[in-house]
Amino acid sequence: MSTDGGHDLRHHGDAEVRDDGGSLVDLAVNVRADTPPAWLREHIAASLGGLAAYPDGRAARAAVAARHGLPVERVLLTAGAAEAFVLLARALKVRRPVVVHPQFTEPEAALRDAGHTVDRVLLREEDGFRLDPAAVPEAADLVVIGNPTNPTSVLHPAEVIASLARPGRLLVVDEAFMDAVPGEREALADRVDVPGLVVLRSLTKTWGLAGLRIGYVLAAPETIEDLERAQPLWPVSTPALAAAQACVGPRGVAEAAHAAHRVAADRVHLVTGLARFAPAGLRVVAPAEGPFVLIRLPHAATVRGRLRDLGYAVRRGDTFPGLDEEWLRLAVRDRRTVDGFLRALERALAGTPTR
Amino acid sequence: MSTDGGHDLRHHGDAEVRDDGGSLVDLAVNVRADTPPAWLREHIAASLGGLAAYPDGRAARAAVAARHGLPVERVLLTAGAAEAFVLLARALKVRRPVVVHPQFTEPEAALRDAGHTVDRVLLREEDGFRLDPAAVPEAADLVVIGNPTNPTSVLHPAEVIASLARPGRLLVVDEAFMDAVPGEREALADRVDVPGLVVLRSLTKTWGLAGLRIGYVLAAPETIEDLERAQPLWPVSTPALAAAQACVGPRGVAEAAHAAHRVAADRVHLVTGLARFAPAGLRVVAPAEGPFVLIRLPHAATVRGRLRDLGYAVRRGDTFPGLDEEWLRLAVRDRRTVDGFLRALERALAGTPTR
Repeated sequence: MSTDGGHDLRHHGDAEVRDDGGSLVDLAVNVRADTPPAWLREHIAASLGGLAAYPDGRAARAAVAARHGLPVERVLLTAGAAEAFVLLARALKVRRPVVVHPQFTEPEAALRDAGHTVDRVLLREEDGFRLDPAAVPEAADLVVIGNPTNPTSVLHPAEVIASLARPGRLLVVDEAFMDAVPGEREALADRVDVPGLVVLRSLTKTWGLAGLRIGYVLAAPETIEDLERAQPLWPVSTPALAAAQACVGPRGVAEAAHAAHRVAADRVHLVTGLARFAPAGLRVVAPAEGPFVLIRLPHAATVRGRLRDLGYAVRRGDTFPGLDEEWLRLAVRDRRTVDGFLRALERALAGTPTR
Repeated sequence: MSTDGGHDLRHHGDAEVRDDGGSLVDLAVNVRADTPPAWLREHIAASLGGLAAYPDGRAARAAVAARHGLPVERVLLTAGAAEAFVLLARALKVRRPVVVHPQFTEPEAALRDAGHTVDRVLLREEDGFRLDPAAVPEAADLVVIGNPTNPTSVLHPAEVIASLARPGRLLVVDEAFMDAVPGEREALADRVDVPGLVVLRSLTKTWGLAGLRIGYVLAAPETIEDLERAQPLWPVSTPALAAAQACVGPRGVAEAAHAAHRVAADRVHLVTGLARFAPAGLRVVAPAEGPFVLIRLPHAATVRGRLRDLGYAVRRGDTFPGLDEEWLRLAVRDRRTVDGFLRALERALAGTPTR
């Protein structure tokens, strides 16, 4: 298990809902509720007729390339972003990797498991968890940052991230949640002009395909080749390829864009609702731009336990480097779910001493 | 691409049928025809309802352990045997790997891609491609052998393979086709007494799940831990886990056993049919014990081209180290398909000069 003494880097939201399964309302896992949609599920089911054949990823790869206006040589399909992190950690010649925290812990865990010593840049609450490019060591030859960042929900300006590019440096931008940002503002996915840029995308979160393991990497052809060489044969399953092709097609892209606007509206509802707990010391990291929000409140661990008793699972924040037990992450859900959650939060806080 | 100058180690049977798709009768790919069965396909389809959740491999792992009478700590589920080869090549401390050829080329390709220098033991036609344990260098700390071996279809005695075990050596036995051997004679899967033993199993071939990417590793708990640490998070998809659980359950094991006997009967039919081409110089490696047979014949490349024109895809043998362009591998199919193939072979040979 990867820990850094204080943080269990391999703790993820799924562990918070796993064993109680259906009994908890899930605001812990960053997967859009009520997904995958029926049309997509049917499309995936149709692919099961071809399971006896080995997967052929060419059509899905071409579809992803077309979606981003890139040549196929810049695209690699992976078994989820998690595989991409392992490939980056193991297949590339890297000597001084730096991870910008707080963020999704899997990149650092994969780098450590591959034997690397990982330096951290810790963004600070007092700066709104915004990136200061000067904080990244010049010597870093691999920099990993999420945009929008999980768990802070901060959306960094594309140009600020691009300014981290250097000759001899790989700049890895995890855009797993970018398709939940209306207009994909600040996306770097199709930017072939940024040297060393490696963009990771997921189809898990927006499409509810966490169980299928599908994502992709966009990078220079040489980097894609290096990563591909470290992949197993047939790394992505036939159902996952079918899903990828559908999600990046016209219908998928249009639905994702629509969902992004709905998430944005639902997030406003959540953040507005949370504002009334300011007197209890609750603060929301703002502006939140992802499909989740990060909050700080006194006695968060106690509140989380009470919410659980009231039927709501939220994500603990203390497993993210740079955060502690005062932090919680909340997935954005529909208004009705949010309203129920806010009522539960009120009850949970009522029994808690305020600061 | 991994080549050794003469052999394209990354050429596989699927490439021989891929682009003509349905137009060729496939004797090139070692996946049982008419699979997966309907009950299994339905079981997999039912799992699609849970795709929004991250995969939870615990039940499938326990089912595999129960199938082999082993503790779960000795089991690792992988995204096909192909992932297992990459994990073995990258996660373990290995200095002198040896691969016994001719065999499936992916283990060597994965070892090379991970930077290893790989020594080969070449089994010889004049020995019936049988293993001579004395041919394996004492210094080898990783030995890879297939049983029954692809493409020779030779089934090595379990005790001969077990005699390769040494302190400080990992003995990797690829049993991807063992469940096609009646009674799983010579299986080492459940042998906890052989030090350093690592057994790989596939669910792809017997169950027609090549598109799903599912297999497993059986080894000492320490080895399993090392491999698991190098895996991505959530390495096996939810549909693949559902399939694994079903395939190793009572119904799956009983059906596989039945299928193994049918394959054996169909193989006899194929080998008997091939005997009549002996005057044309065709020889079958015997005894064949897997769901495929290896044949040698003059002008094999020409014959393969003619078979293709006649609508039959067979696997070229020359990409396997130790074989050359005189070799072909034939998947065992049902009697009717075999009869059609034998007629085509007769026509293909009629136009070919005999030796």
